[in-house]
This record gives sequence, structure tokens and C-alpha cells, in this order.
Amino acid sequence: MTKTIAKELDRELQMRAALVTGAIEELLPVVHPRPLYEAGRHLVDAGGKRLRPSMLLLAAEAVGGDAAAIVAAAVSIELIHNFTLIHDDIMDNADVRRGRPAVHKLWGLSGAILAGDTLYSKAFQVLGMTKARPDLILGAMNLLSKTCTAICEGQWLDMEFEAKERVSEAEYMEMIEKKTGVLYGASAGMGALLAGAAPSVVAALDEFGRLTGMGFQLQDDVIDLITPEMVSGKRQGGDLIEAKKTLIMIHAFANDVPVKVFGKKDATPEQISESISLLEKSGCIEYARSRAEEMVQKGKLALQVLPDSKAKATLLELADYMVRRQY
Amino acid sequence: MTKTIAKELDRELQMRAALVTGAIEELLPVVHPRPLYEAGRHLVDAGGKRLRPSMLLLAAEAVGGDAAAIVAAAVSIELIHNFTLIHDDIMDNADVRRGRPAVHKLWGLSGAILAGDTLYSKAFQVLGMTKARPDLILGAMNLLSKTCTAICEGQWLDMEFEAKERVSEAEYMEMIEKKTGVLYGASAGMGALLAGAAPSVVAALDEFGRLTGMGFQLQDDVIDLITPEMVSGKRQGGDLIEAKKTLIMIHAFANDVPVKVFGKKDATPEQISESISLLEKSGCIEYARSRAEEMVQKGKLALQVLPDSKAKATLLELADYMVRRQY
Repeated sequence: MTKTIAKELDRELQMRAALVTGAIEELLPVVHPRPLYEAGRHLVDAGGKRLRPSMLLLAAEAVGGDAAAIVAAAVSIELIHNFTLIHDDIMDNADVRRGRPAVHKLWGLSGAILAGDTLYSKAFQVLGMTKARPDLILGAMNLLSKTCTAICEGQWLDMEFEAKERVSEAEYMEMIEKKTGVLYGASAGMGALLAGAAPSVVAALDEFGRLTGMGFQLQDDVIDLITPEMVSGKRQGGDLIEAKKTLIMIHAFANDVPVKVFGKKDATPEQISESISLLEKSGCIEYARSRAEEMVQKGKLALQVLPDSKAKATLLELADYMVRRQY
Repeated sequence: MTKTIAKELDRELQMRAALVTGAIEELLPVVHPRPLYEAGRHLVDAGGKRLRPSMLLLAAEAVGGDAAAIVAAAVSIELIHNFTLIHDDIMDNADVRRGRPAVHKLWGLSGAILAGDTLYSKAFQVLGMTKARPDLILGAMNLLSKTCTAICEGQWLDMEFEAKERVSEAEYMEMIEKKTGVLYGASAGMGALLAGAAPSVVAALDEFGRLTGMGFQLQDDVIDLITPEMVSGKRQGGDLIEAKKTLIMIHAFANDVPVKVFGKKDATPEQISESISLLEKSGCIEYARSRAEEMVQKGKLALQVLPDSKAKATLLELADYMVRRQY
């Protein structure tokens, strides 16, 4: 991706992120009981790149729809994403998210459970306010509820893997498909659906989102190893010492690459650095990177059903960005 | 209520409960990952009276609809109810529910959060499978999502009250309206809506459910004091020693009735019994009972918009049962 394209993509995404952020202010106001809504808004207001709602808006445009009319649906996706972050942070006992204390750190366990539950129902409420044909909104709701169930299954599998001695590549891919892929799939699919696209086009956009979302997750695992804390805000190699069974580690196990710091929370930075070098040299990181690239290329192919347009071009660039980003 | 009417009501409710239980088996199957769905089914399978889904089915019949066609919607209400029980038990650190260990006691905190989240999305998925006109299903989804938000607000208020020195009667009534009333309201409202009733009729059924649901909750507070543990399965006077600011206690505070065991977790059974006697003699229990009766009578008035029918008669009997039950 050349610098000019990257800059242009940045501009396109920022424009849509701003649209979504403005709509959140209107669709998720802080009302009585205020602390509940403040807890709900805590992470939402911390920003993030809003890639999912942007993908929804771009998908609608790429099928010839009016993105501005369905910005409420884009907000609903962002609320679901934030609901999962709040509950996941409780389960992972994470302290920090988006540079802020996690919700449960500020509002306690009960406050965080409820803040997440509130975003969950608000997402469906907000989706119901989308300016689209009732049957299309109902279709979007069915897609979203199915997606939320899959996300819960994905998070369950992720937790189950912690207790498992070995995880297969197929099991890992199923987990990231459900935990991360399906919400990107629903984003692109709902954008197309609400814009009135034919079922086959909706399915193609769903596949595009799902596969590029899986690529996004695989790249996240790579970033954990290659990006310094100064840039990512997260400890480099954190997944290793926490014994996360990422695709990189699954490949290392399969190829008898001895990763000394795996599961060693007291490892020194030098030891971590040594293990990362080994994973790099042995090709384990490259393996995950190439699988990520593969997912994205396959996802992009799905867009062949669409006529050329500015929005389609931006979606293709977004797909590349999802696996080429370094943080 | 005569014994014959009580028996007949029991039969009507059991018939509908059985219909709902059968549909749960089909609509919430235990699939991969099985432990997640087993956790989700744990309380659902423990039964309960299924009053909310029965009210939904009766409301549909009372407006001339086909209850069998919308049994999926009745299941969705029961799933939402169970989702709130699972998350509430985490927040209240409750050990037992429906005679079984609470979900978080068996599957841990993370398992219980996820089991609740899964029932939440499944409820919307299942509602989407209802055999009704798409615009009516969409209307029901909008009603359900609004209701879930209100339930979260109600639970937040309930928790907030624990830290408050004094709670007013108006604050208490708002809390039970949101925590308990609105889901009964949604049950009756959705039943009417999905059966194609006019908006004014839907609103009347919603009001019937909401008000009788509030009466149900007030009666719950009474039952805590008057029903022996042998019958209720809960410690008699448990709300007192746990310092719950029920309407009964709010009335006691307002009238300077000295309830010695309030907030005293180490109170003896004799001391608890003495405080209960005092609440009875001073008219505090009777005050809550009469407010409960009032809510139910007002709720029943809302049904005047309906023509007479077997289902309407059963709804009226159900309303009486909600505040006359002793456990």
C-alpha cells in the first residue's frame, strides 16, 4: 500500500468514524440513571478506529445504498463491539482498554456487567431506529442476534483453550471466526442488506467481512510479537508469557520450536526477545502472517460480485490495511 | 379466589407452561460448545412457573389470536427472564436459585456472564422465528429491546439503593416497575401485538402486565416476611437482615417503626420473628399488601377494552393469583 493510498484510506475512515461518533451522542444519551450510562459510554467515548461501523457504511455504499440513512445500524454494531469488550475485560481480568481503566475497574463487577447488558439491548433498540424498510430491519436484527450468539460461543472457546493442553489449527480458526470474524461479517452484511441488496450480494459482503475480520485477528497476534510497547500500548510478547495458544504458538508446537517463555509470567525482556527472535527465524510468525494475508485475499475475491465504485475500492484498501497495520 | 377457580387457573397455566417447555427443547438445543448451552439451560430447565410466557400466550388469545403460532415469542420472554436471573445472581452473590446452585457457582463467573449473554441473543433469535407478519415481529423486537434496557436500569437502581441511607416510595416504585413490571408488560403487550391487535389494545395489555407485575413484586416482599422457609425455600425475613429497602421497610422508616433486626445478619430466629410481628401489628405489611392489591385492580381495569372470553377470564384470575399467592 503506497503512502498516498494509506493517507486516502485514513481520510475515508476518519470521515465515517466522525459520522458514527456524532450519532452515538444522539442515540446513546447519558440519561437517568446517569452512572449506568456513563459506564456504558466509557469505552465507546474512548474512540477506537470504528472499523466495523465504517465497514457497514462502506458496504451499503458499495451496493448503491444511502449510507447516511443507516448510520443507526452502524452505531448498533459499535455498541455490540463495546459490549463484548466490557464483558471480555471482566473475564480476562484486564486492567486497561483503549488507554483507559477497564469499566469493571471503575464501576466494579456488577456495574460492568450491567453496562455491557445495557449496550447489548441499546444496540437492538438503535438498530430498530434505522431508516430502512421494516422487513430489511428485521433481517438485520436476525443477522445481528445470530452473530451475538456466535460471539459468545467464540469467547467460550477462547476461555476453554486456556485449560487445554493442545489446540488444533482448525479449532483456533473456528474460535477467531466466531470471536472476531462474524461481527465484521455482520457489519458488511448488514450494510448491504439494509441498502436492499440481493441475498447473494449480502452473503458475499458477509463473507468479505468475516474473512478479513479473521485476517485482522491473526494480524493482532503478529502485532503482539513484533510491535514495541511504546507503539502498541501493550507489552511486547504479552500473549507468550500469558500462554495464549495463538496460531503462531500452535505452529511452533507442531514444529517443535522451543519457546522458552511460553507461560512464564516472570520472564525477563531479554528472554522474551529471544523467544520472539526464534519464532521469527523458525517461520512461525511468517506462517500466521501468510494465513492472514490468505484470508484477506479470499475475502477480497468475494467482492467481485460488485460493480467498481469508490466505496468498493475503499473496502478493498481497508481489507489490505487490516493485515498490514503494525499496531 | 375459590378452590375451584384456583385449580382451574393452575390447569390453564400448567398447560401453557408445558407448551413453552416443549418449545425450549427445540429452540434452545444443547449444541457445540455444549458446556455453554448446558450453563444456559441450567435454570431454564429448573422450571419455575413460566408466568411471563403464559401471560404472553393468554394475551394473544384474549385479542383473538392464535397462541400456538407465537410460542417462539413466549420462549424469548422466558429466555430474557432467565438471562436476568443468571446475571442478577452474580451481582447479588446468590448461591441458590430455583432449588439449584446458581449458574456462577457451577460454571464460574466467566461462564455465568457468557451463559447470560447467550440467552440474551438467543431470545432475539428465537423471537425472529415467530410465525407472524414481519412488521409485527419487528414491533415485538423493538418492544423487547426497550424492555431489556429498562430492566438494566431497574437492576442498577436496586443496587444503588443498597448504598443509599433512605429510599422514597416513588423511587422504590420506579425500581420495581423497571426491574419486574416492564417484562410482564412486554409479555402481555407482545402477545397482543403479535396477534395483530390495535396499538391501543397493545398498550392496554402492556399496562395490565406492567401493573400486575409490580403487584407481583410487592407480594414477593410480603412473602419474604410471612412465609416459612419450609414453604418458600428462602429464609423467612431474609430481606430484613440483608437490609433490603422494600416498600414495607420504607413505610416502617416513615412511621418510626423500630425494626431491630434490619441489617443485622447475626439476628436470631426469635429476634427476626419479633420484628416481623411488629411490622405486621404496625400495619407495614398490610400497607404493602394493599398497594399490591391496588396495582392489580388497576391493571385489571385496563382489560376492559377486551371482549369477554375464556382467555380474558384466565388473565383476570392470573392477576389475582399474582398478589394472593403465599409463596
